[in-house]
Parts: sequence; C-alpha cells; structure tokens
Amino acid sequence: MGEALGGLKRSMYCGEPRESHVGSKITLMGWVQRNRKLGGLNFIDLRDREGIMQVVFGEEINAEAFEKAKAVKPEYCIAVIGEVVKREAPNESMPTGMVELKCESIKILSESDTPPIYIKEGLDASEQVRLKHRYLDLRRPDMQKIFMIRNRASKAVRDFLDTNGFLEVETPILTKSTPEGARDYLVPSRNYPGMFYALPQSPQIFKQLLMVSGFDKYYQITKCFRDEDLRANRQPEFTQVDLEMSFVEEEDVIGINEKLIAHVFKEVLGHEVKLPIPRMTYKDAMEKYGSDKPDIRFGMEITDLTEEVKDVDFMVFKSALEAKGSVRALCLKGGASMGRKDIDRLGEFVKGYKAKGLAYIQLKEEGIKSPIAKFLNDDDMNRIISKMGAETGDLILIVADKNSVVFQSLGALRLELAKKYDLIKDKSEFKFTWVTEFPLFEYSEEEERYTACHHPFTAPMDEDLDMIESDPGKVRSKAYDLVLNGEELGGGSIRIHNMELQERMFKALGFTQEEAWERFGFLLEAFKFGPPPHGGLAFGLDRMIMFLAGTDNIKDVIAFPKNQNAYCYLSEAPNIVDEKQLSELGIKIDVKKEEKIEE
Amino acid sequence: MGEALGGLKRSMYCGEPRESHVGSKITLMGWVQRNRKLGGLNFIDLRDREGIMQVVFGEEINAEAFEKAKAVKPEYCIAVIGEVVKREAPNESMPTGMVELKCESIKILSESDTPPIYIKEGLDASEQVRLKHRYLDLRRPDMQKIFMIRNRASKAVRDFLDTNGFLEVETPILTKSTPEGARDYLVPSRNYPGMFYALPQSPQIFKQLLMVSGFDKYYQITKCFRDEDLRANRQPEFTQVDLEMSFVEEEDVIGINEKLIAHVFKEVLGHEVKLPIPRMTYKDAMEKYGSDKPDIRFGMEITDLTEEVKDVDFMVFKSALEAKGSVRALCLKGGASMGRKDIDRLGEFVKGYKAKGLAYIQLKEEGIKSPIAKFLNDDDMNRIISKMGAETGDLILIVADKNSVVFQSLGALRLELAKKYDLIKDKSEFKFTWVTEFPLFEYSEEEERYTACHHPFTAPMDEDLDMIESDPGKVRSKAYDLVLNGEELGGGSIRIHNMELQERMFKALGFTQEEAWERFGFLLEAFKFGPPPHGGLAFGLDRMIMFLAGTDNIKDVIAFPKNQNAYCYLSEAPNIVDEKQLSELGIKIDVKKEEKIEE
Repeated sequence: MGEALGGLKRSMYCGEPRESHVGSKITLMGWVQRNRKLGGLNFIDLRDREGIMQVVFGEEINAEAFEKAKAVKPEYCIAVIGEVVKREAPNESMPTGMVELKCESIKILSESDTPPIYIKEGLDASEQVRLKHRYLDLRRPDMQKIFMIRNRASKAVRDFLDTNGFLEVETPILTKSTPEGARDYLVPSRNYPGMFYALPQSPQIFKQLLMVSGFDKYYQITKCFRDEDLRANRQPEFTQVDLEMSFVEEEDVIGINEKLIAHVFKEVLGHEVKLPIPRMTYKDAMEKYGSDKPDIRFGMEITDLTEEVKDVDFMVFKSALEAKGSVRALCLKGGASMGRKDIDRLGEFVKGYKAKGLAYIQLKEEGIKSPIAKFLNDDDMNRIISKMGAETGDLILIVADKNSVVFQSLGALRLELAKKYDLIKDKSEFKFTWVTEFPLFEYSEEEERYTACHHPFTAPMDEDLDMIESDPGKVRSKAYDLVLNGEELGGGSIRIHNMELQERMFKALGFTQEEAWERFGFLLEAFKFGPPPHGGLAFGLDRMIMFLAGTDNIKDVIAFPKNQNAYCYLSEAPNIVDEKQLSELGIKIDVKKEEKIEE
Repeated sequence: MGEALGGLKRSMYCGEPRESHVGSKITLMGWVQRNRKLGGLNFIDLRDREGIMQVVFGEEINAEAFEKAKAVKPEYCIAVIGEVVKREAPNESMPTGMVELKCESIKILSESDTPPIYIKEGLDASEQVRLKHRYLDLRRPDMQKIFMIRNRASKAVRDFLDTNGFLEVETPILTKSTPEGARDYLVPSRNYPGMFYALPQSPQIFKQLLMVSGFDKYYQITKCFRDEDLRANRQPEFTQVDLEMSFVEEEDVIGINEKLIAHVFKEVLGHEVKLPIPRMTYKDAMEKYGSDKPDIRFGMEITDLTEEVKDVDFMVFKSALEAKGSVRALCLKGGASMGRKDIDRLGEFVKGYKAKGLAYIQLKEEGIKSPIAKFLNDDDMNRIISKMGAETGDLILIVADKNSVVFQSLGALRLELAKKYDLIKDKSEFKFTWVTEFPLFEYSEEEERYTACHHPFTAPMDEDLDMIESDPGKVRSKAYDLVLNGEELGGGSIRIHNMELQERMFKALGFTQEEAWERFGFLLEAFKFGPPPHGGLAFGLDRMIMFLAGTDNIKDVIAFPKNQNAYCYLSEAPNIVDEKQLSELGIKIDVKKEEKIEE
C-alpha cells in the first residue's frame, strides 16, 4: 500500500514552476514519466495534467529521498517536496525547462505495474487496447488537452447563452418511444410490465413544449441516443447543444447561433469567425457542390452543361435530358495529364454513386482528347470549354443522369479529387456556410412514402404551403444547417406551431390522424393553448470538439466511448444480468442461438 | 391559423417597461392574462416570463387594433406595438405599474382554448391535471421563477467549479449493471441480444477512473437513475452535481464544497452562508439528535440518562441496560401541561419506531407527575431533572431500549414535537452542518450480511483499518454528508485507491474475489497503475433547488416529472412498443396478467 498524504498539500501543478519560483519550496504531485540515473543523481520527470517538471534526487540533496527515488518506476504516483532551482542546462522545449526541483522528500503514493500502453503523445496503439485501458489512454497529454478543450467549449457555450437570456432546462431521459427516424433505445418498465420507456433521440418535443410554456429561450447540453448500426464517427450516445427560442424567424435563430459559434471558436482557439457567415440555399448547394454540406475550402464547382449539350446527338446525354435529368461537369485544373488508368478509376468511383459513367475531355497541349469528341462538333466543344472556363492543361469530367445521381456522384467526385490532388491548401482553415431552404420532404424508396427531411415539426416556407398535398417534393422548409469544412455542425428550423398545419404535415407523412395523435398527441394538444411562433437549432457537440481539437475520430473526444458495435471494452457493457432483474421487468430473453454476436 | 410575425421583432419583455420608457414605441409579445372592457376601452394584461404589462386599446388610439382586441381571450398569444405612456392610476403592486402601452397594432399569433388550469400563482389544482398539461402549469409565474432559480443555481455551480480548476467531463449513460445498492434501469442491446446496458445510479466508478487518468479535478451535472419504489420526493431520474478531486483528504473536499454551497446561495438568493460550516461526527449526531441528518434549527437535544438511572429498579430500564442499550430522553420546555391523551399519542408515535414505550415526567406547578415516579427515589428524580436541565413547566420524555431504537424513536419524536409545538421559529433560516465519521458498514438484517453504509468504494479511517475483518460494525469511514435543515444535501468520501484494500472491502461485503472482479474488475485493474489518493462528493441538485425555491415538492423543480409510479401523465411514458422493436432486441414480454397495473 502506498504512503498516505498525511496532511501534505500540493502547492502547484507540475507545469507551473518558472524562473520566478527559484528559491521557493514547493510540493508537487503527479505521475513519473521517466526516472534516469545520471552522474550519481536521479532525474524524475514528473507529470500532471498541466505539464512536466524535472525533479532531481541526490545523496547530497537528501540521502533518504535519493534512496527511495531509486525504486520509482514509470507511472508511479508520487509527491515530492523541494526547492526550485535554476537548471544548469535549460531545456527550451519545456515550459518548465529553465528550472528543476531539488527533492528533499518523496512520498510514493501508489505503485504501478508496467502499463500496457505508452503514456505519450501521438500514441499508435490498437484501439481496443486503448479503450480497454482507457484510464491510461486518457492520461496521455494529447488526450488531456482534448478534454480541456471540450470543457472550455462547453463553458463558452453556456456563458454565451446565459448572457443572452437563455435558460438551461433539463428534459427527461426516460421518455416515450416515437419511432419516426432512427431506432430508439428502450427501457422496460417494472411498474408497468410489458411497457417501455425510450431514451430520447433529441429533446425536440420537450423543448417545443417549453416554448408553449413561455420559457422563451431554452438551452441544454444533453445526451441523445440512437440505436443505429454505427457508421464511422457515430456513437450510440452523443451530446447535443440544444436550443429553442420563441417569437423568432429564421433570421433570428441564424443570427444568435452564428454569434454563439464565433464566441466558442474565439474562446477556445482564439480564432475569429467572420460574421455574418455566408449562406446558400439547398438548391445552390446541390447545384454547385452536389452536397447539402458543401466544403467551400476549395472551388471546382459543378457546372451545368445541359444548355450547352441539349442538341448533341449522344445517347447518354439525350436519355438523361429526356428523363428530366441533366448533364453537369467538373473542371480539374491541370488535370489533362491524368493517365487513362486514373481516369478509369474515377469512372469506377462515380459508379459507386449510381452514375452510369463518367465522360471526360482532356485539354492537352497537343489537342483535345475525349472519348465523346466524336459526338461533338467544334461549336459544341467550344461552348462546353467556354462554359467550364477550361484552359489548356485542364480536365473536364462529365456526368449525365437524373439530377439526384448527377449531384451525388459529382459532389463525391469533387471531394475525392480534392483529397487526391490536395486542393485544400490550408487544412487548419475554418470555412463556415449556412445552407437554407431545405426541402420539407424527401421520398423514401424503401418506405414508398415521403419522410421528413429534417423532422416532422419543421415549418414549410409560407410561399410553398399550398403544395404540401399536391406536390410535397417541391415544398421548401424553414430549415437551416450550419456547415463547416464540408461537415454538418448543427441544424434547426422554424417549427410548426399550429395544430392544423402539424396535422397536415403528419398526413403528408402517411400517418392517419389517429396514429398522429397516439404518438404526438401531447404536442398537438399543447398547440390548442396559444403556442408562440418558435424555432431553434441543435449542434453536435462531439463534432464541434473534433473541429476544435483537430481530430477526425469521434472516440477521441468522448471520455468513455463505445466501439462500432456499441460495446464498451472498459466496463464490458452491455453484459448479462440476473434472471431476477428480468423477471421483475416482465421480460424474457428470446434469442435464436445463431443470432448472438461472439466477442 | 394565427398571424405570422412577418419580420416583427420584440423590443423588450413585458416585465421591463418603466417610467423611463414613456414616449418610446415598443413591441411586446406574450400571453393574455386577462382582457377587460372599461369605459369604452379594452385593457389587456400581457404576460411573458419576465412579468406583466397593461396594454390599452381604444377607438381613438387605433380603431382597427381596438376592434381586433375585443375578440382576444385569455392565453391567446399576441404581439402588440404601441407607445409607452404614464398611467393615470398607477398600480404600485406591479413593477410595470406606473406605465401602460397604448396599442396601435396587434397581431394574434395564436388562439387558445379555455385552459384546463388557471395560469396564476399558488394554483391549487390536482397534480394529475397539472402534470398532464405541464406546459400550461409551467406557464404559471411561480413555476417560471423556480426554473429561473434552477438555471441560476446550475450556472453558479459551474462558474465556481470552473474558476477552481474543475473540468467538466461527461460519463456514459449506457453502462454496466452493478447491482449493489438500488435497482438498475436496464436497456436491452440489439447488437448483443440477451445482454443489457444499465443506466447509471451515479457516475461513481467513471469519476474514479478519471482520477486514475490524471484529470485531477472533475465535475459534472448529470442525470442518475434508480428504479425504486418511489417515496415522496424521489424521482426515477434525478440530477446530481458530481465532483471528484485527486491528492486530497477529507479536509480539502469539505473545504471546497462548503465554499461552493456558499457561492450558490449567495448568487441565487443573496444569502450569506457562514463559513466554516460546523461539523459533528456521526456518533454525536446520533446521540444528540437521533439522526444522521440532524435538524439543528432548534435545540431540545437528546440527553443520556443511563448513568443517572443505572441503579433504578425499573424493569424497562434495567433490561435495556442489560442488553447494552441505553436510557435517553428529551425535555420539552413548557410541555408539562400536555394532556394525557396527547402524551399517549406520543407513546404511539415512538412505537412506530419500534420503541416499546415512552416514559414521561411532568414538572407541574403542583408537583411532579409521572407513571414511573414510583420506581424513582428523590435522589434519582433530582439527578434526572438536573441532567435534563428541566424546570417547572417542562415535560421529560424517556425511551429505554437498544441504542438504534432509542436514537431512531427519540430522533423522530424530536422532529414531531418541533412540528407540533412550532419549535422552529425562523422557517426561512438555513442551518448547515457536516456530519463526519460515518460507519463504513451497516448490518442488513434482510440480507444477513454487512452492506456498505455509503458505497463500497468509501475509504475506512486509518485508525480503524484493522477492524475490517474482526469488527466491521465498528469501522468508521472517511465519509461526510452535508446536511441542511435536517435534509441531506450531499455526501461523499475519500475513496479507497488501493487494490488490496478494495478487495478486503468487497470480501467484507460478502463478495467472492471472483464476483468482485466480475463486477468491478475494471476499477480494480485500474488500481494497478498508480492511482492517486482521491475523494469527492455529490449533491442532489433537485433537493438543492427545493431549498433555494422554498418548495417541499420535488415535482416542482423538475420540468417534466413522473408520478409515484414513474409514469409521465404528459407523454404517457412508459407505453407499449411495436413487436418488431422487441424482436430486434431479442426479448419477449413475459407478464402474468394479474401483475399489470391498470392506469
């Protein structure tokens, strides 16, 4: 057993001593980074969350401490007392490198086995080992930095919203299953056997009810849950910065939220976000970038060639246009020299997005080279080149198909080319854009019905109200997303606050009135009592931290994350439970043996 | 459908206009409190979260607005534009009472049915109706105030802890079932059918792992879950202010936490908590107040008469003392005049706490009256009266039994008398005390084993270490509770940070080594790698808010609470779910019909 503190108090962090402390007697506590013998002395690098300090032990400094220090190994937890002295050989690379501690007394608070991972920055160990021993992984300085950033960011969010009159109100975690959207996590009820709570996918309905309650401005940083097959960078539980405001329109919600984001980036990174953040409509985003989360750190926008090729006698173009599709293209500057194999690979790439093929035009020094040249007369070719703004040395890449395929494939191709040809020059840059006027509905081929593009509480644009029944696909909504470097940072909308309109919406989504009331009756009922106009937004905090910390792995920003199967290597959750627990809940396991995933 | 805002912006809250605004044109938005016709004018009291403003409509102010206002009913949501003018007849009882708004334009944003509850302070409606229409209940000014207090308190907690170097770190909600203590809520896993997550009863193990990780100072305001039969003032999900520190002893944790509490009471109520908060040991608390959460707003402490009566030849006393129990008493000042019936009722009362009876001595003007007088000689009687500090007019109430019964019954009797005879003079007073040196174990008659008095991670006091195996009931722990006005506000301890000691603790609790490792292996494993000495505390935020808001009903401080059966009248959770959802989770409902609770 380690030694007790016995009243000993730490006087500062290991990262704090400077030349101004020379001559002071201080007490440090932390973990041993390394312990070296050198010229009759022992040097321990002592680490805590704020940094590393060199501690010297010697026969002549203190014989007892010197003797004890010899046995100390990496990751022992120790306390040392001594005088701060100037180093003979300063280490400029460490903030504390001008000084060291002459140790007069040491307490070994606890010992350590040899750790299964190195406690150092930029560790390259297997994820499973890191997660199983997460408490050691988190001891690494780069991980500690991330959680300090996360702490600062959350605090900055709260401070800003508090200053702006938002009230933090907590909404329930044990709530009702409303299976529209993702799959709910369920919680069996003991008091009502056969019934279940659900963990919330978001506090959406409750925050709208808070607006009906007159709280006016609400926020919460809260956990949300989705039982989905996890794509990379998704976790079963994640954190949302959730807010809602009454008596507002799109403009107001956008205005306060871009100020919020600017405040956070300023507080955490000292980075100035230029306001107002530019906006583009969903339509523009799709047409120029083939994506509703456009990465605008580079150009190479999609160009519509439909007009230019409308008379070209090429079957692929013709059939696309006849099917009300379009012909669109990218121009890769300096891409004309690309070899046949690489171009073929791009063709394969767009097929992954359902495009039938990729036509191209190489503007080589020696002349134009293109498999579709034979279908184009000189005028056609010149019109295309001119519209694309292409010059000698460039490569034009063309997709003709129905619009959804054209956008998706060219949007993905644009990003792929950016990666391959390093088109994003400044990787540390933050390029924000709002995307507005999202469609209200999208057609689900799988469910053979319209589903809500955001969620069923999103308000349609006033000018499109009449098309809800007649042409739902054309109805635009009062929804907006904030996009950063091609990733969605947050999204929201002005909500419906009218029972009749909400019922029309549910009907368009294929709910009978009875079903709508069964699921969402408590919101519809609330709309009978003077609901205010309201709207809001939710940011994914985890993703925000990923940007602030400069990591592209969501597991780095969550203290105790789960793996792709929603399994925790550390606590071994989920796990078996006692039969008694299940019988109290009135449930029984009903698993065919072959369904079980083996660890 | 209501009118759209159409770009209209609110310029201030209804509670804000003052004489200094006279002459300004402002826009208010809110809910109609009432609409009165008076002398050819209409007066609407308009309400939002900040207050109420009188709005006047008249033919000569604006004919169109006047006409529209006539149709407006309570709880309509409206926007009004007009000039602030001085009131002819000021209303001193309203902060805005010196002025009114002459309405030039009104928009009816949404209409309201007649609400099922009155939107007013001090509502006396059935709880079920209030909870079912919670969004209306929350519209009441007294409820709005409570949630503003809650918001301010949470913010004050965060600000204080942030300033003092604590990092907010989020711990998982989907975690592992560790059935020691209360019953867990379970969440079936879809990826691992037959296995379950549990919702955390507290972040205890994770915060200790964060200390092993070197985060040094951690806090979180987080939801915790217990599937228990709900006593009054318990909710299935509740909020904890949870914190943990490394390199500390009891003194340090107590010191920072009393400063935290003082900060919160100061920020929210302007109340100065006198520091340091007094402390008493568990032993003293039990002996003086018969409770580990003593209400020290009044005296009437329990007095030990064992020494005084040790030679008295009264069977009840004798057998109590022979069984190593004691004889103790309360002295109710001025209680001598209590009638026989009332005294008998007190006797019945203590029987509810397993006391066999209640002896008493009435010090009446006309002489001493007591059913046990015959067993006491004059010396005995004088010794008792003198020890009790009793004077003519007082009533002495005596229990003789084993100590646990004596403490429990006299402790309860003390509180009962305080209520009945109004001994707490200043109800708004806040009397804090720390209770320290709790026992480490308590014996569970039900489970026939020792259980952890706080939780199994609590460190024993160094001087009692040797008794863990030999005399567990005598081992005191490094645990402390903060008690306010007889309620536990929070509690914590210095933790065990040593694997061997933690294993001894589990053994004393009756776990085999295998069981201990199966349940808590990830903590024991972590203790192999240089764990720091650490300790912490958790406050019940809901209870703290109850004190700050002056309510004794926990449902008042939770926006969307559940009833005593953990049922939500608003969302109707828990509820049935689709068969498909259950089959995906590999579970089946297994309920005998008679078990079902009917709504």
